[in-house]
Amino acid sequence: MPRVKKSPDVRTNELIECAQRLFFEQGYENTTVNDVIREANVSKGAFYHYFVSKEALLEAVASRMAHQSLKELQALFEDPTLDAVGQLNALFAGSRRLKVEMAPQLKNTFNALFKPENIVLYHRIDAAVSAVTLPYLTGLLERGHKEGSLDAPDPEATALMLLNLRLGVAKTMHRALQQTEAGDLDGAARILDGWMRTYGLAVERLLKIPEGAIEITEPGFARAFLEATV
Amino acid sequence: MPRVKKSPDVRTNELIECAQRLFFEQGYENTTVNDVIREANVSKGAFYHYFVSKEALLEAVASRMAHQSLKELQALFEDPTLDAVGQLNALFAGSRRLKVEMAPQLKNTFNALFKPENIVLYHRIDAAVSAVTLPYLTGLLERGHKEGSLDAPDPEATALMLLNLRLGVAKTMHRALQQTEAGDLDGAARILDGWMRTYGLAVERLLKIPEGAIEITEPGFARAFLEATV
Repeated sequence: MPRVKKSPDVRTNELIECAQRLFFEQGYENTTVNDVIREANVSKGAFYHYFVSKEALLEAVASRMAHQSLKELQALFEDPTLDAVGQLNALFAGSRRLKVEMAPQLKNTFNALFKPENIVLYHRIDAAVSAVTLPYLTGLLERGHKEGSLDAPDPEATALMLLNLRLGVAKTMHRALQQTEAGDLDGAARILDGWMRTYGLAVERLLKIPEGAIEITEPGFARAFLEATV
Repeated sequence: MPRVKKSPDVRTNELIECAQRLFFEQGYENTTVNDVIREANVSKGAFYHYFVSKEALLEAVASRMAHQSLKELQALFEDPTLDAVGQLNALFAGSRRLKVEMAPQLKNTFNALFKPENIVLYHRIDAAVSAVTLPYLTGLLERGHKEGSLDAPDPEATALMLLNLRLGVAKTMHRALQQTEAGDLDGAARILDGWMRTYGLAVERLLKIPEGAIEITEPGFARAFLEATV
């Protein structure tokens, strides 16, 4: 097929879409830059014009996914019937739904992502997701502080701290996925449930929300999620 | 000078010491693997036998520094006159002292470390420091929970969350260092002071400690620290 001249935006988008499909189908580790180049039908030079490395491409994929997820969750931030705590809960519920839905396609990438040797990669993706999420979360905390449903005198720093609280999940998730692979789904679900309980408590305390007001998880979520990764 | 056969431990230590000296003297970015090899008088093959990259070497330097700092602070963890909150405060005070003492030697590395483009490097170093610190912090939270001076039903997950709360400092520190370089030391100190206030509040809330019980900073610290980096 002859190569067609396309605008940089179109080209970048195509590369990201190709990469996302390949990362999901065969896993990040098993995908090479050459695979992406072949699939997208671009030259090596053109690829490296847009992305310095495979890692940079993954970052772009993560950022795109975060934008898409936020778009799906957008209605939330505009729902006048919810206060900020209600919005936070809806946000956690939405993110649980997305996780279970995407687990089957994500499983190869997931298993790779939470390995201790890939911690740098994990942080890189997290940074992309955080950058997209931070302004929305900051706005939510600002509103909540004003209406009095939560306490966050410094909304931006607090939003960043909330996002960073999640990071410990990588270690926990790695343990839970190993346990799942070893056939102990109940043990794995217990590990993940325990972490989420502590995380929910931390969110409540950090924002001075009454204990029990934040629903980080729901019965059966950890199990359903882990089952979907098998 | 002829090359002497040394045990792997001795060799590794020498390479780390050399690297630490060079990173401090000329900055991480300006130091090449070849500089380290020349300074330590080892072959390229021997170097790569011990370390896969310059980043891996920096990680080892960070881990070694964390071990040394913890050794200096060790007496703290064994002081029977302090409860866990007192120990946390002593820990923060000790780490402030180390930071001001080391700022002049660290300034090149520091300025490089907090640049947004080096966020991966920052996380790599943080992971090394966290790995060394986590067991001590977990033990401290366990003791505090037992004696009732703080509330941490899941000490390990909470310790990890406490460590992750700090991560936002990179962004803040970068801003403050830029402001300092631009000559606005007062503005820079205000940025850093603000972040530390929010961080201290987050630590108190997360551990259910009375507000004001944690002394993350003291008057003049941010200014003294930033001044030492100029």
